[in-house]
Amino acid sequence: MEFRYPNGKIYKPQEVIKTPYLKKKTYSNRGMTLEEDLNETNVYYLEQKIAVIHKKPTPVQIVSVDYPKRSAAVIKEAYFKQASTTDYNGIYRGRYIDFEAKETRNKTSFPLQNFHQHQINHMNAILQQDGICFVILRFTTLDEIYFLDAKHLLTFWNRQFADGRKSITKLEIETYGHQLAIGYHPRIDYIKVIDQVYF
Amino acid sequence: MEFRYPNGKIYKPQEVIKTPYLKKKTYSNRGMTLEEDLNETNVYYLEQKIAVIHKKPTPVQIVSVDYPKRSAAVIKEAYFKQASTTDYNGIYRGRYIDFEAKETRNKTSFPLQNFHQHQINHMNAILQQDGICFVILRFTTLDEIYFLDAKHLLTFWNRQFADGRKSITKLEIETYGHQLAIGYHPRIDYIKVIDQVYF
Repeated sequence: MEFRYPNGKIYKPQEVIKTPYLKKKTYSNRGMTLEEDLNETNVYYLEQKIAVIHKKPTPVQIVSVDYPKRSAAVIKEAYFKQASTTDYNGIYRGRYIDFEAKETRNKTSFPLQNFHQHQINHMNAILQQDGICFVILRFTTLDEIYFLDAKHLLTFWNRQFADGRKSITKLEIETYGHQLAIGYHPRIDYIKVIDQVYF
Repeated sequence: MEFRYPNGKIYKPQEVIKTPYLKKKTYSNRGMTLEEDLNETNVYYLEQKIAVIHKKPTPVQIVSVDYPKRSAAVIKEAYFKQASTTDYNGIYRGRYIDFEAKETRNKTSFPLQNFHQHQINHMNAILQQDGICFVILRFTTLDEIYFLDAKHLLTFWNRQFADGRKSITKLEIETYGHQLAIGYHPRIDYIKVIDQVYF
């Protein structure tokens, strides 16, 4: 069963993946969402002591909770809240890492409506604090994934208010970003790009 | 109305504090929880462009969601999950910051049961990545707040398996930690200690 946010986006529950190795043997990458691939990548980084990066929980406003006797509290009414930050953050070799991951079914451009002003402001604040901040963009139908530094995203974001263009062309992403290979273990080795670009 | 976690801890909803200055004029510090004080402190740091530090959302496992026509999705059944990390993280002057905040009504020691093994493992991983990791401990009845580096917490945590002592004495916290003054603006200026100790 699918749950949807007020904006129509599908809600993906976060799961603690305890047996990524066993699980990996039983399926191919087909059908995996970007979030699932990144969660597995982050589990790999954590287990290999490469980096400590987590997805933040989905923000929820809780309105009503029941306390049945002898069992866990049940949230009976709650609402999804818009996140004020990006979804992923953590640490790699002492540096602060912060990113957002988004998918599109488009083939030639990435719509900026995948981001909202709060997130853009957050990324800007992170860059000002000298953090490593970026987005991971997946073209689902092409099965291509790109790493784009937030400073470039900010440029394209601001451009829309100048010339009205509400997307980043794929050529721009290829030019300013870095394509990420889709692997097996880890699935999306974005730390490799961080090593090349920031260290 | 108070909500409680399965372990009996009171649930504090996260609120986006949009008018901290207005709000501050209308109440004193009495009755504010440590979390509220830290949220206001973090808003101050963010607005002053000093640091970008956020509390993570409360992790919730969503089981059932309703989609009433023409209104927001309503979560009808969900459960609190145990956090696998600490509650607060972010960036200050390029460095990764990570901490947990806890209160006790005890006067002479801080019970280790305020932490759980997942969080201890997380703190250890952060220290290994050269992050700035600590706990903020408040003695509620004394209204004293301390900053204690996670490396000391780990020592006391491990001691309990050696000699069985399930708390940190207040004297130990005074010796290895740093008392945080309770101020007005920001309320708990923990960045001052970070400046002294880590830069």
